[in-house]
Amino acid sequence: MKNDVTKTPVAVIGASGYTGLELLKLLITHPRFDIAYIGNTKGGIRTEELHPSLKSVFSGDVLKSDANEIAKVAKVAFLALPHKTSMSFAKKLLKLGVKVVDLSADYRLELDTYEKYYCEHEDRENIPNSVYGLPEFYRQKIKNTSLVANPGCYPTATLLGILPFCDFIDERYPIFIDAKSGVSGAGKKCSEKTHFVSIDENIFAYNPLMHRHEPEIKEKMKQFSGKDFDVNFVPHLLPIIRGEMIDSYMLVKEEGLNPLEILREFYKNEPNIRIYEYPIDMKSSSGTNFCDIFAKVVGKKLYINSAIDNILRGSSSQAVANANIMCGFEENLGIPIIAYVP
Amino acid sequence: MKNDVTKTPVAVIGASGYTGLELLKLLITHPRFDIAYIGNTKGGIRTEELHPSLKSVFSGDVLKSDANEIAKVAKVAFLALPHKTSMSFAKKLLKLGVKVVDLSADYRLELDTYEKYYCEHEDRENIPNSVYGLPEFYRQKIKNTSLVANPGCYPTATLLGILPFCDFIDERYPIFIDAKSGVSGAGKKCSEKTHFVSIDENIFAYNPLMHRHEPEIKEKMKQFSGKDFDVNFVPHLLPIIRGEMIDSYMLVKEEGLNPLEILREFYKNEPNIRIYEYPIDMKSSSGTNFCDIFAKVVGKKLYINSAIDNILRGSSSQAVANANIMCGFEENLGIPIIAYVP
Amino acid sequence: MKNDVTKTPVAVIGASGYTGLELLKLLITHPRFDIAYIGNTKGGIRTEELHPSLKSVFSGDVLKSDANEIAKVAKVAFLALPHKTSMSFAKKLLKLGVKVVDLSADYRLELDTYEKYYCEHEDRENIPNSVYGLPEFYRQKIKNTSLVANPGCYPTATLLGILPFCDFIDERYPIFIDAKSGVSGAGKKCSEKTHFVSIDENIFAYNPLMHRHEPEIKEKMKQFSGKDFDVNFVPHLLPIIRGEMIDSYMLVKEEGLNPLEILREFYKNEPNIRIYEYPIDMKSSSGTNFCDIFAKVVGKKLYINSAIDNILRGSSSQAVANANIMCGFEENLGIPIIAYVP
Amino acid sequence: MKNDVTKTPVAVIGASGYTGLELLKLLITHPRFDIAYIGNTKGGIRTEELHPSLKSVFSGDVLKSDANEIAKVAKVAFLALPHKTSMSFAKKLLKLGVKVVDLSADYRLELDTYEKYYCEHEDRENIPNSVYGLPEFYRQKIKNTSLVANPGCYPTATLLGILPFCDFIDERYPIFIDAKSGVSGAGKKCSEKTHFVSIDENIFAYNPLMHRHEPEIKEKMKQFSGKDFDVNFVPHLLPIIRGEMIDSYMLVKEEGLNPLEILREFYKNEPNIRIYEYPIDMKSSSGTNFCDIFAKVVGKKLYINSAIDNILRGSSSQAVANANIMCGFEENLGIPIIAYVP
Repeated sequence: MKNDVTKTPVAVIGASGYTGLELLKLLITHPRFDIAYIGNTKGGIRTEELHPSLKSVFSGDVLKSDANEIAKVAKVAFLALPHKTSMSFAKKLLKLGVKVVDLSADYRLELDTYEKYYCEHEDRENIPNSVYGLPEFYRQKIKNTSLVANPGCYPTATLLGILPFCDFIDERYPIFIDAKSGVSGAGKKCSEKTHFVSIDENIFAYNPLMHRHEPEIKEKMKQFSGKDFDVNFVPHLLPIIRGEMIDSYMLVKEEGLNPLEILREFYKNEPNIRIYEYPIDMKSSSGTNFCDIFAKVVGKKLYINSAIDNILRGSSSQAVANANIMCGFEENLGIPIIAYVP
Repeated sequence: MKNDVTKTPVAVIGASGYTGLELLKLLITHPRFDIAYIGNTKGGIRTEELHPSLKSVFSGDVLKSDANEIAKVAKVAFLALPHKTSMSFAKKLLKLGVKVVDLSADYRLELDTYEKYYCEHEDRENIPNSVYGLPEFYRQKIKNTSLVANPGCYPTATLLGILPFCDFIDERYPIFIDAKSGVSGAGKKCSEKTHFVSIDENIFAYNPLMHRHEPEIKEKMKQFSGKDFDVNFVPHLLPIIRGEMIDSYMLVKEEGLNPLEILREFYKNEPNIRIYEYPIDMKSSSGTNFCDIFAKVVGKKLYINSAIDNILRGSSSQAVANANIMCGFEENLGIPIIAYVP
Repeated sequence: MKNDVTKTPVAVIGASGYTGLELLKLLITHPRFDIAYIGNTKGGIRTEELHPSLKSVFSGDVLKSDANEIAKVAKVAFLALPHKTSMSFAKKLLKLGVKVVDLSADYRLELDTYEKYYCEHEDRENIPNSVYGLPEFYRQKIKNTSLVANPGCYPTATLLGILPFCDFIDERYPIFIDAKSGVSGAGKKCSEKTHFVSIDENIFAYNPLMHRHEPEIKEKMKQFSGKDFDVNFVPHLLPIIRGEMIDSYMLVKEEGLNPLEILREFYKNEPNIRIYEYPIDMKSSSGTNFCDIFAKVVGKKLYINSAIDNILRGSSSQAVANANIMCGFEENLGIPIIAYVP
Repeated sequence: MKNDVTKTPVAVIGASGYTGLELLKLLITHPRFDIAYIGNTKGGIRTEELHPSLKSVFSGDVLKSDANEIAKVAKVAFLALPHKTSMSFAKKLLKLGVKVVDLSADYRLELDTYEKYYCEHEDRENIPNSVYGLPEFYRQKIKNTSLVANPGCYPTATLLGILPFCDFIDERYPIFIDAKSGVSGAGKKCSEKTHFVSIDENIFAYNPLMHRHEPEIKEKMKQFSGKDFDVNFVPHLLPIIRGEMIDSYMLVKEEGLNPLEILREFYKNEPNIRIYEYPIDMKSSSGTNFCDIFAKVVGKKLYINSAIDNILRGSSSQAVANANIMCGFEENLGIPIIAYVP
């Protein structure tokens, strides 16, 4: 951790997990951000001990996270924390003048929705100031806020595919979203579910029609379009480390829709969206900030097929893009666009 | 290949592929069938050369398939052949008095449907006599036929999940079927798509809303219920060898449905169906003839989640069960029920 | 659990783990054994709850293991327990007249060796009576003992490859054994090491030159040949569930050895050994009790390449074969020989 | 493909394969190289058609490779071609004044060795001028040559582990090298061996004690140390896309060696080597140019454990590092050091 006056000092709080690692990896080489503070629950360890692959690449002290200390050295803080823990830090940091990109769910939802699906909110004051960090839709607001709620991984991939069609979808019928995620999305903590033997050569759905990302998708569709859509979400875990694919099924109001034309027009100036004429493969976006989208209409039935890297576009690289916008930098500065393929 | 007069001699035609291997594996230990003829396109090889894992287990001459020779030694023939090739064998074998279990698509569909999605049919005469080999639904007819059309893997898993709900589904609304298959379903032939590097850490849809199993599902639902359902089918390839999972989404006519009760009642005497109270995992049925099913209703939305082993219940073990029924044996004779887990 | 008087009642103690599951799977269909008692640490659960893939296949009460209760109902006990726990059960069961197949390390080694690598031994009395359960080498003794020490998975695959060459190996030089195991060998307990994300797309060695199976291999080579070999063992974990491959490197005393001829002669009457003329692939033995072996000599250098299913031949199916021998049954009764391929 | 006069124009010949893709990925973002020519066998295609993951990232015309055209626009050519094809291009390009980094085997070996293991050499003239591109050992010579023979992937990982010990190894005893590679090393061409179903849940050795990388390792050890070592090499294919691990076993002349100290001293100024105190895991170097090394001594037995990314350090990133040196740039310019983990 060097001190470079031309760079903006940032803090990574919650450095132990996968999204913490991805943040570090992105920030190490970022041309305008400088890692000034790294925190986790306990501290007293170095980054290369937490993440051995960083050996000889980057070495920083990991401290027991302390909002006051963070505020002394950092202008922007990335919070890669569980929900509830996150809001307690965000609240303090905002008061101390630190900009916050919160990767948890704490500021993504309206108060009622949040409290219904998560827990009591302890920082109601800042909810109205938070901006949902989907740059393609909220770029201007992100520029002017000091609190970005970084979207969930599933909502990111789903919304980027569906939002362009809000005017066309027949809201009297349900939207069915069949989602598939790599295991990194389940976090670093070991459990019977994440044991290699449980995951390998297997696939299973979890929390069908009751996952917390369902209300997030629904609420954002409402905010964007003013309409109430009936969103039904079934996520699956895949024997894959990284990546996420969404298959969305719905009805449109009229036949004859050309979905690729709609997508191309909608995203014509967007560098982080790729439109395909054939079904996408998940791996082509792994390692990048791209959201890849294919869509097809048969009669009134619309099928949307989108993919992202769940811990980059679905978390850490989107967070850095948001920080870029908040700090007045070019949005794609330091953002990865070259996939890990092969 | 011993000759045991108390056993029924059978032929396996198309022994080179994965379903051919599965047939051999099942028949080697079958208490009432005796492998009397093994054929493939070229012949001149032994089974353990085609399938090295059979070394020291089973050794048989593989011959260039010849219907007349088959008829001399076998009473039942399993055809694990590509469509079109299959019907030319079936036609001859039936004329020679050999019972046929056809694992291809050739006799699964009504003539018009078949010719629309496959090719011109060259054995129209036998189509009316063929029985669709889904034992839970056509057991009696299978008993009395000499030609079973073994169902496709995707239709097997889909129909076993959906058919019990035909009376409840609102047919004015589309049914969306999001299917996931292991790579053995794509066959043994190498291609860029089946290269390890293309499949591993990846997932992709193929032939979305235009796969040939879509009309098969639709037609069987019509035959069973008399109703026209709007079936929409999107299959995916998974980085998995064996297994298949189906997620089906639809609307029912009225709220308050208890889908597990319906399934339990419907399948109460069926030994090869397992009903779950939580989402199924694909691997629990791998290696078996089981179809595992979970279902859930929210309002009028019905979600059905089913899984099978694609090359056993989706092909070879279902074929052997059909042959058991055709020969008057106990349906589950020699049928595997213990999963490969772990 | 039916009671069949023509069958020998057996107990499976330690039913929760992978080898416990494999034992149950083998015993469910075994023609001469009847599962009379199933135990684990806590009891109060049913087998299909411990192992959901057994649903509708086998349902038995799992009890808190109690030696006296076991002795009332079972004539043979399989102990799939951790070392140390195992000897305390074995001791009691033997005293109560129950034959024991111990899958732990507790009776595999001579006292000194055991206490050096494991812990203090609490059943010294029974060590001299125990027989090392490698049927190809100790068949006669197994027949006459009431305590079989089932070999470790690595020693099984290694010794079956190496022992035939003891007369030819130059014992002045070290033997290097590079072993590779699937993750089921690491047990069902979750840890950072067995997390899917740690294992997938990865490989690593562990305990190099200091694994407890090293002295087991060395001691058995000594017992068999009377010679002290310098055994050096490095195991690796593979991103695979099931299977184990051993690559052994050593020097022989004279050039001109034909290793395949030696193997074929040595194992000429052995049904569970397969000799190959080309390098073996691990998967061809997965699901079976086979040990597959290939070997090659260049000058005085001997390379031996062997593979087994680590939880079958390396544990549970070898245990059942040993029990067959102990009970006077045909050795391969109920032993799987058909691989899971594809 | 922009034209930037401050950058050195380079050609990538053989752009269709995995190493061709890796070269493109590295060169797209390289601060001092500019991709001026992209060739493959047929031409008439664009890079994003060859490699769909490059969509919206980089688009270049791929031409039918022509040495004269290459020489008009490029100062350095990377040849990612099969052996034999490569020398015909290199010969012409060198004559036309283009510097060449040859990723094939054509200039790695002395003439006799080459012709024994590959084919007749058609460019004998340039063999003496070629430099073996292992920067840690031939940095000065690379600086002054116009032809670098980029090392094989296995020799790179093996030699970086073993060469520091040449003074200590007892050359009277064989060195055994047990190598494990991801499937990308087998190339993009499909075959039964690279079918997903053949590789997944499997491992097998190939060309044991007769792989072409064996003489390459032996010859480089001789060149470096003046000694003839007895090198014995057995490679394996792993169910992994990317990465390579080497386990080398040998005897040293005297006891008491501290191998980590030797490695640390030997590589003390080398930025692309990492020394570990515990066995390495393959994935920590995937995505980077690092070679990770662990070593351990017991008595006189030395175990060396090294890993690289087979298509980066084992091919394309090492090629770019060599080009950097040849052009007088900083060796690590544009070279990846952050692993893909998780």
